[in-house]
Amino acid sequence: MRNDQQSFRRCFNSSREKVEQALKSLASQKPLGVPARLWDAMTYSLLAGGKRIRPFLALESGRIFGVHEDDAMAIAIAVEMIHTASLIHDDLPCMDDDVLRRGKPTNHMVYGEGMALLAGDALFLMGPGYAARKLEGCRRVPAERVLPALQVILDASGPSGICGGQTLDTEEEERDKSSPWRIAYWKTAILLRACIMAPAYLGGASAVEMKCLSSFGSHLGVAFQIVDDVLDVSGRPEQLGKTPGKDAMQKKNSFVHLGGLEAAKAMAIDQSRRAKVALSGIRRDTTVLEGIVDYLESRNA
Amino acid sequence: MRNDQQSFRRCFNSSREKVEQALKSLASQKPLGVPARLWDAMTYSLLAGGKRIRPFLALESGRIFGVHEDDAMAIAIAVEMIHTASLIHDDLPCMDDDVLRRGKPTNHMVYGEGMALLAGDALFLMGPGYAARKLEGCRRVPAERVLPALQVILDASGPSGICGGQTLDTEEEERDKSSPWRIAYWKTAILLRACIMAPAYLGGASAVEMKCLSSFGSHLGVAFQIVDDVLDVSGRPEQLGKTPGKDAMQKKNSFVHLGGLEAAKAMAIDQSRRAKVALSGIRRDTTVLEGIVDYLESRNA
Repeated sequence: MRNDQQSFRRCFNSSREKVEQALKSLASQKPLGVPARLWDAMTYSLLAGGKRIRPFLALESGRIFGVHEDDAMAIAIAVEMIHTASLIHDDLPCMDDDVLRRGKPTNHMVYGEGMALLAGDALFLMGPGYAARKLEGCRRVPAERVLPALQVILDASGPSGICGGQTLDTEEEERDKSSPWRIAYWKTAILLRACIMAPAYLGGASAVEMKCLSSFGSHLGVAFQIVDDVLDVSGRPEQLGKTPGKDAMQKKNSFVHLGGLEAAKAMAIDQSRRAKVALSGIRRDTTVLEGIVDYLESRNA
Repeated sequence: MRNDQQSFRRCFNSSREKVEQALKSLASQKPLGVPARLWDAMTYSLLAGGKRIRPFLALESGRIFGVHEDDAMAIAIAVEMIHTASLIHDDLPCMDDDVLRRGKPTNHMVYGEGMALLAGDALFLMGPGYAARKLEGCRRVPAERVLPALQVILDASGPSGICGGQTLDTEEEERDKSSPWRIAYWKTAILLRACIMAPAYLGGASAVEMKCLSSFGSHLGVAFQIVDDVLDVSGRPEQLGKTPGKDAMQKKNSFVHLGGLEAAKAMAIDQSRRAKVALSGIRRDTTVLEGIVDYLESRNA
């Protein structure tokens, strides 16, 4: 392993530990009045592991733009709540009908459909509310920087974001040749992009820097989704924590379906290259963000 | 009808027309990239009528605190989106399993369960995002006033708000004698309270005024829920647009169930009185808000 890869891994693992710690601490303090079973259902999925890539991106973006780590963490936690909410709802019987997620029973298998629905709703709404409260309370960041940060997160989650992407992914009639690109953008890239942009707003990044970050996040997110599609066909179940071939079985319009496995791999490499080009427009230390491009491209789970 | 009641009705009807107009205009402009079917499902429920009490409260609170009508309308629309989202999800088969809402087929009866789930998610998240964008874009309200306005709306929607209330309402094991009060507060009052408080933040209301408004909104909301429970037992189906007795049939722990119909009616009167007492602490023209207390107490649908 090269030196810069080793250094990236150290950063990534350290960020992951901090995020797990923050999530555990949050989960152990049920807000006053929240029904116990709802909180259990919410935190069951929030603590169910995952690579914590979104929080990592938020923390690293915060570091680059000189944001206090607690403030970047507020964004990191908010985005992970939103991401978790979307997974809980995606797994529901009326959507993908999955019984396992990361090797554990899905939320509705444990808590029932009604509670999984509410746990998803609650996490979707608690995310931005949590960030708003933390960032208003800290008195470190002026409100005019907090507002666009919240907005980019909310926009990435709604009908022009995750919800729109999930619609394209599930509705046959909305699909065409361009679907994999559109689904990857709306369902995956736009939230990754928000993870990077929101802390940059807090840190007062320039308009030029925001443009570079927007492009970086979009390409990184699309690359991420392409690799997901590739792994769905070629990955090993024990590494993936789920059954490979499920998307192909459901005849989903994946990137592999577009032009075959090798073409999809080439697309991932191209998107990763574009992500790095976008980063080069930022005159700050972005080596760790470059590291995640390589990491996500070469991952096997 | 007394003079002040007539004047209240004029205000109420005029507000309702403006809100319907604003919602229709919004629905006719699908945001770029949002899948057509998702937008159809979202706007189907958003335009399905209702009394538009929440938007009315937001507009009236905005008027009292000198907020530009467009800015109060941004809050009004956001809250109506959140309210609509909660209704779509409440009607789903895994929740109350309702086929009719306001005399029309429920969202999932028209668009299917998966799409109704996504339409609800999208409306939940588009609401605060819409308000954030409008209020940031208008450049009339300083960001440090927008932030607490968004926060009170987000808090009212999440696990310590609508989602928590809905959990209490559906989970047998979470229920006890205090349930009707807690359900009324979390599921209904807290969002009505947010409708009144959010525009007051925008208008720079004092801490004392915010406290009065918080109390007013809470009591008004609880009174509203008690009257709902009373109407469920004694209302006429042709006026309600739904089958009365459904809550009683589902053995829900309603206010009527607590101590009978007459006791519930007395509680509604008491809560309405407390709402008016709270209002009296505000040295501004609050006659229209007093009017809505009487209107909601004496409504028959």
